[in-house]
Parts: sequence; C-alpha cells; structure tokens
Amino acid sequence: MNADGVLTGELDPHSDRAVFRQIADHLRDAIQRGRLPEGAKLPSEAQLVEHYKVARMTIRSALQELQTEGLVVSEHGRGVFVRRRPPVRRLASDRFARRHRKEGKAAFLAESAQVGAKSEVDMIEIREQATTAEVADRLSLEAGDEVVVRSRRYSLNGHPVETAVSYIPADIARGTPITDPNPGPGGIYARIEDMGHTLERFEEEVSARMPTPDEARILQLPAGTPVFRLVRTAFDTEGRAVEVCDTIMSADAYVLSYELPAH
Amino acid sequence: MNADGVLTGELDPHSDRAVFRQIADHLRDAIQRGRLPEGAKLPSEAQLVEHYKVARMTIRSALQELQTEGLVVSEHGRGVFVRRRPPVRRLASDRFARRHRKEGKAAFLAESAQVGAKSEVDMIEIREQATTAEVADRLSLEAGDEVVVRSRRYSLNGHPVETAVSYIPADIARGTPITDPNPGPGGIYARIEDMGHTLERFEEEVSARMPTPDEARILQLPAGTPVFRLVRTAFDTEGRAVEVCDTIMSADAYVLSYELPAH
Repeated sequence: MNADGVLTGELDPHSDRAVFRQIADHLRDAIQRGRLPEGAKLPSEAQLVEHYKVARMTIRSALQELQTEGLVVSEHGRGVFVRRRPPVRRLASDRFARRHRKEGKAAFLAESAQVGAKSEVDMIEIREQATTAEVADRLSLEAGDEVVVRSRRYSLNGHPVETAVSYIPADIARGTPITDPNPGPGGIYARIEDMGHTLERFEEEVSARMPTPDEARILQLPAGTPVFRLVRTAFDTEGRAVEVCDTIMSADAYVLSYELPAH
Repeated sequence: MNADGVLTGELDPHSDRAVFRQIADHLRDAIQRGRLPEGAKLPSEAQLVEHYKVARMTIRSALQELQTEGLVVSEHGRGVFVRRRPPVRRLASDRFARRHRKEGKAAFLAESAQVGAKSEVDMIEIREQATTAEVADRLSLEAGDEVVVRSRRYSLNGHPVETAVSYIPADIARGTPITDPNPGPGGIYARIEDMGHTLERFEEEVSARMPTPDEARILQLPAGTPVFRLVRTAFDTEGRAVEVCDTIMSADAYVLSYELPAH
C-alpha cells in the first residue's frame, strides 16, 4: 500500500488505463502534492516492483513517462529524482526601459539581481559576417550585407539558462565598443544610442518547442524541458531596425510578462 | 548508402556519439533539409536495420529520440511519419484593440481569419463559483468571492489548439450575456465594456512546459509538443482587474508577438 511512504493510490484492475500509466499517475500526484518535493529520490525500481507486483519493464515505462513530461531526472547508478527547477526570472515588459540603461545595467544583470541570483556571461564570440536572408529581412538590409554578430550564453547560479545572438548592421557597430567582449555600462543598447540611434521600441516574437540536441547540450537541459525562442528587433526613433537578437531560453527558467493596449 | 533515397550520412565507428544518436542525427537532418517533408513516411524499421546493419532496438531508440523531440509521430501499424504542423497563428500585440471589438469580432475569430483557417469553439462551460486564491489575488478579490467562470476550447481547421478559462467578478458578469454560451458581438470584452468598465490595458504572463496528460488529451497533442500557458489580466480605466483568462495553447500552433517600449 505504500513505498517509502509516498504512494497512496492502488492499481485499478478494471480501469482501461494502462497499468504503467496508472503508476505514473500515482507518482505524478505525489510530486504535485509535494509528498515528493524537488530533489527527492523516488522509490527504487525494486521497491516499486515490490509495491505494485508488476514487471520491472512496467515500472520503467512509468518512469520514462514522467521523464518525458519533465517531472523527474534519472541519474545513472543513483536513481530517479524529482527535477529541481532553476530560479524563475520574471521578465517585465519595461525591462529595456532607458532608466535601466542610465543606471548602467545591462538587462540580464538587472533582472538577475531581482531574483537574488548570481549571473554570468560566457561563450562570448564576436564576428563580422554577411547576413542571412532572415536577419536581412528583419533589419531591412539586403541579404549579404555585413552585420556584427555577438553570441553569448547566460547562466544563473551556475546553470545555463539562455543563449543569445545579436545582429547589428556593420555601419552602426563596426569599430565601436559593440565589437568588444565587454561593451561597457548599459550594454550594447547604450552603445547603439551613443551612435545616435535613440531607441524607440522593441518587437518580440515568442515561440516554444523542444530543443535541438545542440541546444539541449549547451543549456544542459534535462529531458522534458522545452525552450522559448524569442526574436527581438530594436527600432530607433527614425523607425530603423538597429538590432535583432535571437534568443534560446530554457522554458523552465522564465516567465515572460507583457503589456497589451486595449485601445 | 541510402534507404528510400533519403539517408546520406554513414555511421562513424570511431565517434563517441552513440550509434542510435548518429542514426537520429541522419534522420533529423533529412527532415530539416526537407528531403523528408511534412507528412512523409520514414523508411521502415526493417529498411533502417538493413541500411545501417544494426539491431532493431537501436533503430527503435533512434526513432524514439525523434518522437521525443516532436519531429515525428508513430502511427500504430502504419509506420513513422514526419509530423504535420498546424497552421501557425501569429498573435499580434494589438489583438485586443477596441477597433476589433467595434467590428464585432471576438479576438480568436479575427486572428483565425488572418491565416485563412476555419475556427470553432466547443466544450463551452459556464458556471459561478467561489474563487481560488490565485485568481482572487489577480482580480484583487478575497478568496471565496464569487466569480463567473467561462471554459472553452478553440480549434483551427478541426484541430484543437487552445483551451481558455475566463474568470470575471460576479458583480460584473452575473445576469449579463457574459453568462450566455454566445455572449454576442465583440465577445466578453465588449460586454464588460457595456457594463461600464472601459478596458485600458492587459497584462500577459507567458510560460512554457510539457503538457499534463489531461492537456495532451484535450488538445490532442503528439509527443514532443510543449504548451504555452498564458495568463492574461484585463484592467479597466479605473485600474480595476475585471477579468483573468488562463489559457493553455499548443506551442506548435502559435507565435506570440509583443511590443516593448524603450523609454
């Protein structure tokens, strides 16, 4: 009736729900009600076999189901654990407001301070290259025009949470601190404004999907963790698109917050 | 060298990448380059076994990997197919603008027309109940205060894409067309405005995660399809929160678009 004190339900032999799904339901319920909190070890396969009187393959199917849902992680040789969630950063709709830049903070650092997390940037790569058709379209350039490309990865408390690639037209960025690993106080948006392009607004497009294997590796994503893809375009007061930022974010680590007008 | 003309890569016996992952890489590449377009049937397990000279379990692991990533679906007895994507609705940041309500359209219908899709609403349920703590907090009510709750499911071209549950304080909604299955031209926002609550702005909070089994069933989601959870709060010109809408959307079917101010 009880493995390690966390399982309460019993199998219903008359249910048309497959046995492995019934077992997954019990474990999911224990996780959602907090009887199995974050980081807790689930009962072992042997304990579950003993408790439910089913074959080991049935237990494995149940555990696989929970892993695909992103609720548990399997640690080789150690067992199966309730997945720990990173601290969630709530991205506010004023996160690129000028007052933050004036305080000398780049957006990521300002937001991280908000959740009391230690933030880091690594894997910084800067290059100049011919633009792809998609980026050219967003920046109203011709495909093949030169852009400065800044790639980097952001981490929070030692966990990678986001990769970002910015594309800035070369006529704006070339030979400026935008091409330096550390572009200085207020980040690249402050430098774009220094170049005479006062920012007016940003457009953000948000989609979500499962990560590619490369994304899962770079962001160290456990199974069952989708990513946000967020493509942001910055416009100056003349209406010119002056930057595109293509971001892949662990969906675990973010809540995005926006304001919409009613009029 | 080639199963059904779609596979080009060969296994690298010296790679430290597991054989099943190498096979998944080949198939993923064929999908991404369009050699296997949407709806195409993958080579059969037998063909893949023959092509790669590996055990059937290895092929199954490779196919399982692609299914978890949401790239393919397995149809029992028929084979494995490249997943068809629903038409993507691009939700614009002016989607709740008054001019759309004035034209008598509710938001979902207006957006669907935009992608030339046929939209439907079903599973409509309307009830009055005591509010939960979370909804009370968002509506600045006391937990236990009465709210009118409207649940419904939206479909596009016959495929469910979204469920939505609206909570409206009972003092606004009770005894009005908001409690009718069809609330009339412009939807419930138009009716809330009829009650003297002119809408000023909306706050939207966007998160993404894997669906619960219930959500996967109601939205008929194939494996590897995350959902957006979008919680929107409507505020009137007095600053009162007059509705909360809690939406679960197939992430496949949407790109969300927003504007952010720079000042």
